[in-house]
Amino acid sequence: MLRLASPDNLRFNQSGQLNSTFGGGEANVAVSLANFGLPVDFVTRLPENDIGRWCEQEVRKYGVNTGNISWGGDRLGIYFLETGAVSRGSNVVYDRAHSAISEISPGMIDWDSVFEGAGWFHWTGITPAISENASRVCMEGIEKAKEKGLTVSCDLNFRKKLWKWGKTASDVMPDLVKYCDIILGNEEDAEKVFGIKPDGVDVTKGEVGADAYRSVGKQLMERFPEAKKVIITLRGSVSANHNSWSGVLYNGQDLLKAPVYEITHIVDRVGGGDSFMAGLIFGLLHYKDDQKALEFAVAASCLKHTIYGDFNQVTIAEVQKLMGGDSSGRVSR
Amino acid sequence: MLRLASPDNLRFNQSGQLNSTFGGGEANVAVSLANFGLPVDFVTRLPENDIGRWCEQEVRKYGVNTGNISWGGDRLGIYFLETGAVSRGSNVVYDRAHSAISEISPGMIDWDSVFEGAGWFHWTGITPAISENASRVCMEGIEKAKEKGLTVSCDLNFRKKLWKWGKTASDVMPDLVKYCDIILGNEEDAEKVFGIKPDGVDVTKGEVGADAYRSVGKQLMERFPEAKKVIITLRGSVSANHNSWSGVLYNGQDLLKAPVYEITHIVDRVGGGDSFMAGLIFGLLHYKDDQKALEFAVAASCLKHTIYGDFNQVTIAEVQKLMGGDSSGRVSR
Amino acid sequence: MLRLASPDNLRFNQSGQLNSTFGGGEANVAVSLANFGLPVDFVTRLPENDIGRWCEQEVRKYGVNTGNISWGGDRLGIYFLETGAVSRGSNVVYDRAHSAISEISPGMIDWDSVFEGAGWFHWTGITPAISENASRVCMEGIEKAKEKGLTVSCDLNFRKKLWKWGKTASDVMPDLVKYCDIILGNEEDAEKVFGIKPDGVDVTKGEVGADAYRSVGKQLMERFPEAKKVIITLRGSVSANHNSWSGVLYNGQDLLKAPVYEITHIVDRVGGGDSFMAGLIFGLLHYKDDQKALEFAVAASCLKHTIYGDFNQVTIAEVQKLMGGDSSGRVSR
Amino acid sequence: MLRLASPDNLRFNQSGQLNSTFGGGEANVAVSLANFGLPVDFVTRLPENDIGRWCEQEVRKYGVNTGNISWGGDRLGIYFLETGAVSRGSNVVYDRAHSAISEISPGMIDWDSVFEGAGWFHWTGITPAISENASRVCMEGIEKAKEKGLTVSCDLNFRKKLWKWGKTASDVMPDLVKYCDIILGNEEDAEKVFGIKPDGVDVTKGEVGADAYRSVGKQLMERFPEAKKVIITLRGSVSANHNSWSGVLYNGQDLLKAPVYEITHIVDRVGGGDSFMAGLIFGLLHYKDDQKALEFAVAASCLKHTIYGDFNQVTIAEVQKLMGGDSSGRVSR
Amino acid sequence: MLRLASPDNLRFNQSGQLNSTFGGGEANVAVSLANFGLPVDFVTRLPENDIGRWCEQEVRKYGVNTGNISWGGDRLGIYFLETGAVSRGSNVVYDRAHSAISEISPGMIDWDSVFEGAGWFHWTGITPAISENASRVCMEGIEKAKEKGLTVSCDLNFRKKLWKWGKTASDVMPDLVKYCDIILGNEEDAEKVFGIKPDGVDVTKGEVGADAYRSVGKQLMERFPEAKKVIITLRGSVSANHNSWSGVLYNGQDLLKAPVYEITHIVDRVGGGDSFMAGLIFGLLHYKDDQKALEFAVAASCLKHTIYGDFNQVTIAEVQKLMGGDSSGRVSR
Amino acid sequence: MLRLASPDNLRFNQSGQLNSTFGGGEANVAVSLANFGLPVDFVTRLPENDIGRWCEQEVRKYGVNTGNISWGGDRLGIYFLETGAVSRGSNVVYDRAHSAISEISPGMIDWDSVFEGAGWFHWTGITPAISENASRVCMEGIEKAKEKGLTVSCDLNFRKKLWKWGKTASDVMPDLVKYCDIILGNEEDAEKVFGIKPDGVDVTKGEVGADAYRSVGKQLMERFPEAKKVIITLRGSVSANHNSWSGVLYNGQDLLKAPVYEITHIVDRVGGGDSFMAGLIFGLLHYKDDQKALEFAVAASCLKHTIYGDFNQVTIAEVQKLMGGDSSGRVSR
Repeated sequence: MLRLASPDNLRFNQSGQLNSTFGGGEANVAVSLANFGLPVDFVTRLPENDIGRWCEQEVRKYGVNTGNISWGGDRLGIYFLETGAVSRGSNVVYDRAHSAISEISPGMIDWDSVFEGAGWFHWTGITPAISENASRVCMEGIEKAKEKGLTVSCDLNFRKKLWKWGKTASDVMPDLVKYCDIILGNEEDAEKVFGIKPDGVDVTKGEVGADAYRSVGKQLMERFPEAKKVIITLRGSVSANHNSWSGVLYNGQDLLKAPVYEITHIVDRVGGGDSFMAGLIFGLLHYKDDQKALEFAVAASCLKHTIYGDFNQVTIAEVQKLMGGDSSGRVSR
Repeated sequence: MLRLASPDNLRFNQSGQLNSTFGGGEANVAVSLANFGLPVDFVTRLPENDIGRWCEQEVRKYGVNTGNISWGGDRLGIYFLETGAVSRGSNVVYDRAHSAISEISPGMIDWDSVFEGAGWFHWTGITPAISENASRVCMEGIEKAKEKGLTVSCDLNFRKKLWKWGKTASDVMPDLVKYCDIILGNEEDAEKVFGIKPDGVDVTKGEVGADAYRSVGKQLMERFPEAKKVIITLRGSVSANHNSWSGVLYNGQDLLKAPVYEITHIVDRVGGGDSFMAGLIFGLLHYKDDQKALEFAVAASCLKHTIYGDFNQVTIAEVQKLMGGDSSGRVSR
Repeated sequence: MLRLASPDNLRFNQSGQLNSTFGGGEANVAVSLANFGLPVDFVTRLPENDIGRWCEQEVRKYGVNTGNISWGGDRLGIYFLETGAVSRGSNVVYDRAHSAISEISPGMIDWDSVFEGAGWFHWTGITPAISENASRVCMEGIEKAKEKGLTVSCDLNFRKKLWKWGKTASDVMPDLVKYCDIILGNEEDAEKVFGIKPDGVDVTKGEVGADAYRSVGKQLMERFPEAKKVIITLRGSVSANHNSWSGVLYNGQDLLKAPVYEITHIVDRVGGGDSFMAGLIFGLLHYKDDQKALEFAVAASCLKHTIYGDFNQVTIAEVQKLMGGDSSGRVSR
Repeated sequence: MLRLASPDNLRFNQSGQLNSTFGGGEANVAVSLANFGLPVDFVTRLPENDIGRWCEQEVRKYGVNTGNISWGGDRLGIYFLETGAVSRGSNVVYDRAHSAISEISPGMIDWDSVFEGAGWFHWTGITPAISENASRVCMEGIEKAKEKGLTVSCDLNFRKKLWKWGKTASDVMPDLVKYCDIILGNEEDAEKVFGIKPDGVDVTKGEVGADAYRSVGKQLMERFPEAKKVIITLRGSVSANHNSWSGVLYNGQDLLKAPVYEITHIVDRVGGGDSFMAGLIFGLLHYKDDQKALEFAVAASCLKHTIYGDFNQVTIAEVQKLMGGDSSGRVSR
Repeated sequence: MLRLASPDNLRFNQSGQLNSTFGGGEANVAVSLANFGLPVDFVTRLPENDIGRWCEQEVRKYGVNTGNISWGGDRLGIYFLETGAVSRGSNVVYDRAHSAISEISPGMIDWDSVFEGAGWFHWTGITPAISENASRVCMEGIEKAKEKGLTVSCDLNFRKKLWKWGKTASDVMPDLVKYCDIILGNEEDAEKVFGIKPDGVDVTKGEVGADAYRSVGKQLMERFPEAKKVIITLRGSVSANHNSWSGVLYNGQDLLKAPVYEITHIVDRVGGGDSFMAGLIFGLLHYKDDQKALEFAVAASCLKHTIYGDFNQVTIAEVQKLMGGDSSGRVSR
Repeated sequence: MLRLASPDNLRFNQSGQLNSTFGGGEANVAVSLANFGLPVDFVTRLPENDIGRWCEQEVRKYGVNTGNISWGGDRLGIYFLETGAVSRGSNVVYDRAHSAISEISPGMIDWDSVFEGAGWFHWTGITPAISENASRVCMEGIEKAKEKGLTVSCDLNFRKKLWKWGKTASDVMPDLVKYCDIILGNEEDAEKVFGIKPDGVDVTKGEVGADAYRSVGKQLMERFPEAKKVIITLRGSVSANHNSWSGVLYNGQDLLKAPVYEITHIVDRVGGGDSFMAGLIFGLLHYKDDQKALEFAVAASCLKHTIYGDFNQVTIAEVQKLMGGDSSGRVSR
């Protein structure tokens, strides 16, 4: 997706320029994993025009393989972003209807080629939201991944505005999520998609009460028995500039917790959840330890809030420094 | 339409910023006329989101009345522009499918309100090309304008890539053009839309042989007897930076000619034809003399090539100075 | 007034570019009201040159009517702005002497035309400070407004540096303020102009002790019996980046209070008072309830601190969301 | 003077930023001479505010001594610049009334200190045009310079718009020019100031007929017998982007000519005459040969047209390379 | 190499920003070939710091394989670029001493891995100029390539300023060039490196007399019998903005010529020769016809002059359009 | 040193532009002192190329005398800066090996000329770290300064990464520091260079326990009996955006303390220590009172954190306002 953001904290109409970067749930995870040194493939559909090719170049720059992209369709989805401040939240205007990915069809992706040598397949709830066809291709990929024995993870990523093609998230998501080994969501996703609520937490207040999410994990696992881990990202919005940030991981037994970070001078919070997911995947593969993986994920995504654009661009060393407790932000020289 | 242009002569992928301005055939004519001091109304359909409202503000800035805009639809059309140089032509990527204007329906515009006190209605061949509905609304406006005794003008503005909704320009345009008092086109429009060719001119060579266009005027008038004037803009492309520019006006009797300008260091050639049309409308109303009107139109649009963006932003005094023969470009201080 | 601001937090000499926007007490109120959808007229005097016309365009962009501007004079006033940070305050260099508005004369504004259909006239203490003539034209407008039965409001807006034409604010303002229905000022204005002090408050400490301002309201009303409401904006300067912000309204009986907002990451505080005034006018007209109007005014101007430039560009919905207690700054998507 | 220029070829209202540099006839000559390595003093009056101090810093950056500047007054003069293209000339809006230099008084400059160790005094016709006081201070400097035996040069620099203080250039200039050893002007100055015309040349056509200027030199020398050399800069305006450029020097005997340069892609032509004057002063001091000095001056000022801003920033080596006939513009690496 | 260029035509000291891109003879050829769709490997040495990794990302963005880069050394070479205009040539300041590539040693590149599946090896005369070690590694690669049966091409690329390590180009180049199948140079390279001159041409005048280069081809082939083709790029420098551009190819029998292009508004001429080389390699592989290959090379590199940065970013379709004779630079829409 | 910083909080690879300013320990002190109005000379070695001359101009702009700079060597040192946020610290990549100053030799500086009329010589621990020769020239200057009776001050400025020429700071610094009248360091310098630790303070926690530094002062004075004052800057890193800042001065008897400032929205912390040193030198000369001097130094360097670039650009009035307790950051107008 092309992201067009007004510079600094300007409203759209205040500047004659828009910053152009690229992003989107799956692309963000892919780039983040490539930055951590993992071999990654970005599977999507891009239009055969200069904007589509530009998108491919930006993703490839970070080392993501783009060889399995399906080319076709009319346009690349766009989102316009106006960055808020203090009590004025950021403002997103979606212009992604009729994008190439929304007009994908089953059979367009050569899943055998995509999964050759692969060990993990990650998808997000945004894809099935876009169109019925995208939903079917998503299912196609999940089934094929499962068949080939890959680990399957998903980020619920509920976006109410996107579900316009006839069915609701509640209709569609269960059939997709049931194959997942790992389920990630934020405070609201489980409720909005599956009606599963944490106990005794008022999410509109942005309270970060980790314990209350044990029940969410349990309920999700009961409903989706394939799931081995449920992860909830926890964001407290003090203001557009200052959020608290953490996450919990429920592995069927324990509710693991990570430190809560106060992010007092946010640079860009878009893509925070995606950078968490990428950190978690890397962490699970690297540490083979749920607690460490969770801590890596929270630290990586905490740092994402200091990086402009959708893509997280931090090094393993930077994440580990923060995991190790050094949040002083001293100059490295 | 939102225009997103890479800065300077950069390719899209070379900059992290796109210059954002607004444009489009009818908007360009409207702004240009407002700059010349005429009361103008821009009739279109804009989506009720921040991008639509931003567009309204930019047009209103120049003094165009925006009170008759119809609000609705999902998105504002976009075009991406990469400015060429020397033998690399500028590159336009259209992303205007499913725009608010393409999803307009007859009845959405209150033509009685629009035409209250109005004397002139201008439309271009881009509107009927967009969608069947846009075509029908265009016809609705033309008929109402004619009924109320307004002068009706049109710019043929043939864009092959846009005619995708089932009928061709040749199918649709004759029924619309037949009401026009004034018809404007460039060297290729009459041929591409009506199969009418100038005698003995090879347009691909960009030759500016004014006389050859007398026959185009005659043939158009024979086919569309309402037409009182046919105007052809004449562009010779030496390179992306250097064009020659002129135009002829056939009024049923004489083929009037204007000077040919050598525009050796083009700043922005997009909107050149629209600025010509606006110059012509102003010229006809102001001078009540075809020759003067033509000269004003050619001079105004020659100056447009020195103005960035789709909108022509020159003063009457600047146009008249050039009409008077002073093309020296001296500093005014 | 043309505002020329160094970008980011740079000193003037650190950048080869200045951001150019427009502002000034009355223009800021006008644009803000137009953004809230009210019909507004900006009455001023602009020089007949490209800078004056540019100013008109920028104001018109937001929907303010510019048809009653008086054209003439030599120059548009300028102010240079350097944005501070932490303990370095922002720095304003005025260059507004000899501006067109300062050389206005009684009779230049056609007040009958201006006030046709109008219900409200707002002026600020900056206008009479500029020159004797501006002061006289201000009086001319006030008297005519009163005569026609308009509500008259004023923002005391004391600027010591501006009163250079021979008389002091204390000499001139009483004769103008005595006609006002609504008087707005900040913590220092009443004292500096009329010698009226709040009880027991040390304003240099930036303390926001709302109650202490009841006496200011009372004293002002005793002195100016026409006044029905006195409003005090309350700013506490923790640093250049962090201010607290609120206001009180005394209506002759009660001292109404609004929430105190902590604005921890200010984008631009210039124009804060003007956005308060516009919020108050809109609030009084819309809610017909002093408490609601005050709350709307405080919330609107709190949000102004997140908007770059002098003009407040927020929507009614955004203000009402903050009034409703949601200051979380979450992303809207 | 502060120069505020819209970027690229934009009109003022098209950009939210203005490029800020400094310039003015005498400052331009001073910086250019400092770049050539000569010790130079810039004598002017600047306001004691941040804009005045910024101006001092920019001039000092190039090695000009600023120790003899007189500090005081209210404002620094400003000029707004919009760069033209092709047949749209650049547009200058002056905002220099009431500047610090215009309110200077005799006695404010310590000429003894200024001229200590100095050999040359240069002034331009802009200074006496600004105000009666500036004119008197100019005379003060000229007389003192003459008294101390300095070479005195002047650039006639006629600006019709500036002479507003009661007397005309024709009234004032003769008394100042009569002390000059060296007089420089462009094609129009001598006529506009002294009524002296070249023979048989139509200057409005921008023809560069060098010979015709012999008579101008003769007439000027007859009228001002102190003058030893008269220099005329010759500009032919093909368009705003393309000028021809040369000059002639009459030394009482011969009319020396220099090559005519075709400057086909002008970057910035403002300050062209000033860079000519600086080149001439340097050339006369360095070569002690009128022909070489003239050629250096023409080549230096030809190169100025490729430098952004008022100040010429080229090296002696670059000028000599062009003097030597290499105008190929090859990459130096 | 990191390229730091002042924006627009500014001198270094006129802007507070430098445009940062990457370039260098071999990188430029690699990116250009990747843009034409060929699989390419960039073999170099980069420092293990953020600047080195940034360089890798930029090259990878265009699809060049970076997996065989050797990591180590202290710094990435830099060159500063100031873009000239008219008679002021562009100015390059090299800061590449002690770069990672200059401190490479034989054995650091795994040539077997590099050449696996490869068919062509291209090197330039810049590499052996940098240091003795770079020269030895260059020889190592050439010998290995030859041994494996690859086609070997070289661009003589003589840079006098670079040969500082003890030997001259004349000492070193013959041993490297003797293995080459294809030799490319500009008008001066053959003379400066091997003392081989065209007959009867004064290269300092920039004359493009193609025939005179037949003798250069013959002499080179006699000296280096492995060479099957000698190509000379022909540049005529009218000014920094306007060059003529062409090339000839001598294949042992015929001197093939290509059209001469007038590039009247150059955007960026750096990398012109490299884009020629890439066009030639692609052309020879694609057309298997010397004349077509030469024409493709000249057209591709002609278009490079309209692309900012060292890298040529044009499509095969754009090159073929120009080859086909359409140099009109019309808008593509 | 040329400083190349990515704009805003971007990573290097996110922008096509780098902000170019100049800095370095000694230059920063020099510019800061010149801003306070003291006559200052910057003694260094710069390469005779456009980058070296650019550096000279930038320093001269602020009024620093550059007449004693030694010209020669190959390159100007560079450092790349990426500005961090929150828990991501700023990142510096040094590229200063083989700089002109590192290749200086004894005898290249004419110390007699430098010290003519001078009263103070300041050096920093960075110079001897660069190379053996730079170390020897530093000693040469110190001895000459001492011989002529100047006050000698030093900032220990330990940079582990720089000491690569064979000896360590512990080897070299004692012989240089022993001549110093005034020694300044941060919390870690004394320990890293001389093994002298504060009592009972864990510096990695960024605690600002002023008292603990009394022992550091004592130990340093015992070791270097020439020292009359030891000053420690105290920085607490809450995050990259929020630091606490203070300092203590031990004069052999008392440990003087200054207020601790909370700098909650840092603009640029690089050069903070240098601005402290400059504030101290100015303070000691101006107030002749250690407590006042310390307070001036802390306030000046606190303000530095709000100024972009290495150079502190604040006025005496601004520092004194903060010293006086006004840290409210109110707008000055």
